[in-house]
Formats: sequence, structure tokens, C-alpha cells
Amino acid sequence: MTTLSVEMKTIDGGITAPSGFRAAAVNCGLKARALDLALLVSDPPAAAAGIFTTNQAVAAPVLVCRDHLARSGGVARAIAVNSGCANACTGKSGMTAALEMAAATAAAAACPVEQVLIASTGVIGLPLETAKVTAGIARAAGELRRDTGRAAAEAIMTTDPWPKETALRVETPQGPFTVGGMVKGAGMIEPMMATMLGFVTTDAAVDPSQLQRALRTVADETFNAITVDGECSTNDSVFLLANGTSGVTIDDSIYPFFVAGLRGVCETLAKEIVRGGEGATKVVAVRVTGASTSDDAKGAARAIANSLLVKTALHGADPNWGRLVAVAGRAGVAFELARCRVRIGPAVLYENDTVYVDREDEAAEHLKGKEVEVEVDLGTSGSSEATVWTCDLSAEYVHINADYRT
Amino acid sequence: MTTLSVEMKTIDGGITAPSGFRAAAVNCGLKARALDLALLVSDPPAAAAGIFTTNQAVAAPVLVCRDHLARSGGVARAIAVNSGCANACTGKSGMTAALEMAAATAAAAACPVEQVLIASTGVIGLPLETAKVTAGIARAAGELRRDTGRAAAEAIMTTDPWPKETALRVETPQGPFTVGGMVKGAGMIEPMMATMLGFVTTDAAVDPSQLQRALRTVADETFNAITVDGECSTNDSVFLLANGTSGVTIDDSIYPFFVAGLRGVCETLAKEIVRGGEGATKVVAVRVTGASTSDDAKGAARAIANSLLVKTALHGADPNWGRLVAVAGRAGVAFELARCRVRIGPAVLYENDTVYVDREDEAAEHLKGKEVEVEVDLGTSGSSEATVWTCDLSAEYVHINADYRT
Repeated sequence: MTTLSVEMKTIDGGITAPSGFRAAAVNCGLKARALDLALLVSDPPAAAAGIFTTNQAVAAPVLVCRDHLARSGGVARAIAVNSGCANACTGKSGMTAALEMAAATAAAAACPVEQVLIASTGVIGLPLETAKVTAGIARAAGELRRDTGRAAAEAIMTTDPWPKETALRVETPQGPFTVGGMVKGAGMIEPMMATMLGFVTTDAAVDPSQLQRALRTVADETFNAITVDGECSTNDSVFLLANGTSGVTIDDSIYPFFVAGLRGVCETLAKEIVRGGEGATKVVAVRVTGASTSDDAKGAARAIANSLLVKTALHGADPNWGRLVAVAGRAGVAFELARCRVRIGPAVLYENDTVYVDREDEAAEHLKGKEVEVEVDLGTSGSSEATVWTCDLSAEYVHINADYRT
Repeated sequence: MTTLSVEMKTIDGGITAPSGFRAAAVNCGLKARALDLALLVSDPPAAAAGIFTTNQAVAAPVLVCRDHLARSGGVARAIAVNSGCANACTGKSGMTAALEMAAATAAAAACPVEQVLIASTGVIGLPLETAKVTAGIARAAGELRRDTGRAAAEAIMTTDPWPKETALRVETPQGPFTVGGMVKGAGMIEPMMATMLGFVTTDAAVDPSQLQRALRTVADETFNAITVDGECSTNDSVFLLANGTSGVTIDDSIYPFFVAGLRGVCETLAKEIVRGGEGATKVVAVRVTGASTSDDAKGAARAIANSLLVKTALHGADPNWGRLVAVAGRAGVAFELARCRVRIGPAVLYENDTVYVDREDEAAEHLKGKEVEVEVDLGTSGSSEATVWTCDLSAEYVHINADYRT
């Protein structure tokens, strides 16, 4: 195995950093005054990939996008996104509303409707005010510009504490290309909100099937490797458009460069979601090593990252290694207590059935930071490993999610 | 299916309510002043059953008990329990300490060591101070009495807000028998504490294999149907002793009376654990109906009962039915959104893709109570159902678990 060194540079511009993409953000009236609708258009038709929630209570826009990607063969011209209403648990009329939103987007971009993708985020169970959304899309179509990535990132926010976007310029033997992206986080401050949406653009030329493969690979290591509270929403979607306007074509020889750039953007955005989790005060990398299988490693890391006892201990900067061991032991994965090892930051606290109490101060000091790491070696003869990023659990999370209506 | 009507009366006495059981509680020095050691002796040898944690990080006393139950064929004379130290993650010396604790108990009860059961609860990773424990057991042996159930329930507490015990006198066609029990809850205020221990006694005569079967059946519907925070500890154990001194023998004809009495005691104790969960302000029955299988029903109910978004909404008395739907949809069970139904207390809020906003006030009013109920019908063609009891999640939980050492 050789390590690829890829030269990449962070640049401004978010989803409009790659060439050939224009965006607009407007207030269409779903929210009182804030931006609540984003429109993204690729000037040439773009290869398109998407991954969607595994929740069976799936929202209408997700059903529409799955259908469109299948019918278009992975080609898209435009994406419309509204915040303020999830159009989920809205039955047949919700599907009608989603189709009208797609039709308005197709009209705005002058493209076949199956080349349109849509997303909604906000309150579950409320009907989408379709007239506001379609009028907003028509208006946004007249305001499409190359410098509006930031405004688009604002328009898709629900209760995210800040807009989240990034972009990378990637050098390859065949010249440079750009990847840009924006996300809204799993911010669940409003009642019944819990959605993660991600939109990534690139001016590289990528075959649709290769694009889907790259998105799946990278999402598993980034967006699917984070957790705020273990929830999976009705609307979760990540889209990736590649319009080829850089002139760089992603063939097998430079595919690793493309994956590296995509991973760079997605990892930054994924960590931003965690950092912006409700009430979060720190980002925690939960690393599991010594697992029998990759699934075991991921399963144990996710169980630890979602444990209330672990997340509260992290919040309190308390090096409670026993909680990590107890969660690993109940995670339903191969585990050998006698060979288990626990590390918090630089300090190994438990190894070979021996407790190192004198290292607790060092671990506690590490946990006071904003970016911390814990590791549990499951002690099996396997060498699989995984990392999941999570945030701590503060009383603020409870206040946000319990007291909103009171 | 005929419904059995069983005459039962709640009585005082806890684990010493059934005849032939004596208990003592002392301070052996693991805690500064509070009772920290309980000894229970059955005057005649009793049939014994036990169920234990499924956590692979299993504590030494659990390993000892499994071995003793196998070697004795399900017979026990005495149980010793200490609080203040879990004797978990303590390696070989922890096993030595557990064996010494068992030997001291056998000496105190003048019985073979394999007729002894032991349990420990408290901090993980600290060595058990064996000399204090064995001296305490010897002292307790001299103080065994028939009216000490309450003191024993106090001695097994860690950070439980109150001692938890109950007893029932059960009438059968062959005469009355008594079931008594005590538990300590999943109180995790101290760092690295997370244990549920349960001890149930009866003066009915029950065959060991039938006793184990009854305990497994009833535990699945009671102790295994509660959750405070989804954790499963290194030490969780429930024991059931039957000494036959009532003269009532549980044959097939009155087995249902025995199960009813056992269920009555265990359900009361299980709900007490939930009521005493850290920071809990209410007990919530999460009911799932319309499931394809019993496992699906339990799985969905447990996922809902452990969801942070659900538990915080319940705390805030917010009738957020969308959160219930979203969790059901991600629970990995058969689910039909179009036929899903959600009820909070008396109010159906979502049914057949229709939202009943006008019923939210009624639901919110219900959620202000101390005992509340939510129901999700998964909408499948199946009719399996399950109930899980949980508590709400308050900021107090976070303070308790994050701020203990600070």
C-alpha cells in the first residue's frame, strides 16, 4: 500500500467555488425574514449522485430524488432546497407538493424535471406551502450568481448555530479541479427537526456510476461516521454534482485524487456538524482498535459515541474509562476484557487488567480541550479499526430539546 | 385464552417477608458510615435461580455466581451483597477477592460454598477491600433477623434516591405463599456506577428448573423491559430463592399463581428503578403495537425509550409525535408509514397520514403527569406488541453524570 500525497488548498466560495455552478438564496416566506430557499444550477448538465436516509419514515422529497436519479441515469441540472418545513409525514398531498417544487425548479433551470433534485428541512407533519416555495424558486432563478455559496449555506439552516461550507482546490497530474460543499447539521432545536442535508459540487468530469461510488465511500468515512444523538431523520440527504467544466476528467489514474478532495470537503463539513451540535462544547474522536471486523469496530465506536454516560463524562472532562469499557462490553461485538486497553488523549488508563490511576490527571487535562480523543482497543486478535466523531452532552442539549415550546 | 384472577395483597417486609428468610445489614467500612453490606440467609436450603448481565466486561462476582449455580444444581443458602465497590475490571485479584467473599459467606451460613451467591456494586476498577467485607459478613451473621428487609434494601444502595423493596402475599387453591424483593437501581451518580441488582425471595416450594424458567419469563417482562439510559452494566444480576417453608408446592396447576406473584413483585421493583432514575421526573410507558414480530415490537419500543429527542420532549411535556415516528422508522423493524399511528395519552395525533393538530393540547396535558403513556402502531399487518418503561431525560441527569468530580 502506497500513500498518496495530494496537494490541496482550502479556498472560499463553498458550493459555487467550482466553475460552472451558480446559486441564489431568497426568503420565500416559510420563515419570517431569514433566507429559507436556495437554488443551485449547474450551467452544463452535471453527473449526479445521491445518498439518502435509511429511515423508513421517509419524506416526499427523498422519494422524488431517488426516482429522478434513476430516471435521469445520474444527471442533474438544478437543486432546490427549502428550510422551515420538512414536508415529511405529510401523506399524498406532501408528494404532490414535492412534485410541484420539482416542476418549478425544472422551469427555472429550463431542464427536464428528472434532472432536478430537491430537499426540504424543518418541522415534520406541517404541509409545505407550495405557492411560496414555487414563487421563491422562480424569483431565485433571476438572481443566480457565482458568489452566492455563503448565502445558500445560510438559506438551508434551520437552527444551526452558523452556516457550514468549505471548498478545496485539488492539484492532479492532469491539472487542478475544485470541490465545494455546504451542509446543515443535525440541529434539533425546533420541535421535530433532525435533518442532515449535504450538497457537494465539483467541476471535475466524473462518470455518474463512479461519482456514486466515490460519494458512498467518502460518506461512510465522514457523514456516516458522525453522531450527535444517534438519530437518523426522515429527510437526510447528501448530493454530489460534477459538471466537468474544469476540463479535468477523473479516470482511474486520478480517481484517488478525486476521492481525496471529496474526503477533504466532506470531513470538514461532517466535523462542523458535530461542532455545531446542540449544546456541544467539544468534538470527540472515538477510536476503536483491535476489532475482529470493520463492522465490529464501527459498531463499538458508534455505541460509545452515543452513550449518555460517556457523553456526559466527556462534558465534565471526567476520565471515566470504566464507562468506555462497559459500553464496549455491551456493544454486541467481539471483545476480550483481559486484553482490552483504554486511552484518553495521551494517557493509557487501563491495560491488561491493570488500572493506571496515576494517569487520570493527564487524561482529565486532555478532556478539557475543544478537540479530544478516546480510544478503546477491544482486545481481540483482529486489527480492524474505526473512528466516529461525536460531541459531548450538556444540560444545554436538554434545555434546547425539552423546553422549546414552554 | 382464559384470564387468571389471582388474589394478591401487598405486605411489608421485603425480602424477609417470606417465611424462613433472615437478613442483616451492616457498615463494613467500604462506605464511611452508611450500610454497605447485606447478608441474606434461607434457613432451609432454597432452590435458586439467577440471571446476569449480557455485558462481556463481566465482573468477578457474576462469574462466581454462574459457576456456583451450575455446581449446586440451583440450590443456595445465602447471598452476600456489598455496595461501594463493583469488583469489576479488577483482573485476577478481583476473582480472588470474590472467592474470599463467597468463602466468608459460606462460613457464616455454615453451608457448602457452591450454595453461596454474591454481588457487588459501586465503583469500577477499584480493588475490593476483602478484609473489610469478610469481617462484615461474619458480623452480619450474628445479627440475622426476620424484620431486616428494609435495612438490607438500604445496604445495597449506591446512589439510589430511596431503598426499593416490596412483598406480596398470594392466595392459591393450595394455600397462600409470599414473594418479597429488593432492588438497587441503575443509579449512576458516582463515577462508573451503572448496576442493577435484584433479589427476590419466596416461601413457595419450586423446582430449580421451573424457578429459573419463571424468573426468565418475568424478568423479560419487567427488569428487561425498563431502560434509564440504555446502558447494561458489568454487574447486573437478579436472584430468586425459593425455600418452600410456606408448605405450598408450585406444581403445574398453580404455576400461573406463582408467575403472577413473581410478576407483581418484579414489576413494582422495575418501575421503582425507573422512577428513581437520575434526574427523572416521570415514568413513561412506551407501547408499540402493530409489529410484525415480538422482537420488532420490543426493538422499536426500546429505541423510542432510549431516544434522546423523545426523552427530552417527554421531559418538556411536548407532544412531539414526529420524533416518535422518526425513531420508529429508524429502529430497523418492519414499519409502514402510511398506516402508522401515534397516540400520546388519550390523544391520537397521527393516523393514516393525517396530522391531528387540534389534539395536541390534550396530549400535552397528559404529558404533564408523573405516569404517562405513548403508543406507536408500526402499521404492519402483524399484531405483536410490547411495552418498555423509561424515564424522561432532564438537565439534572447531565449535571449528575458530568459534574460529579468537578
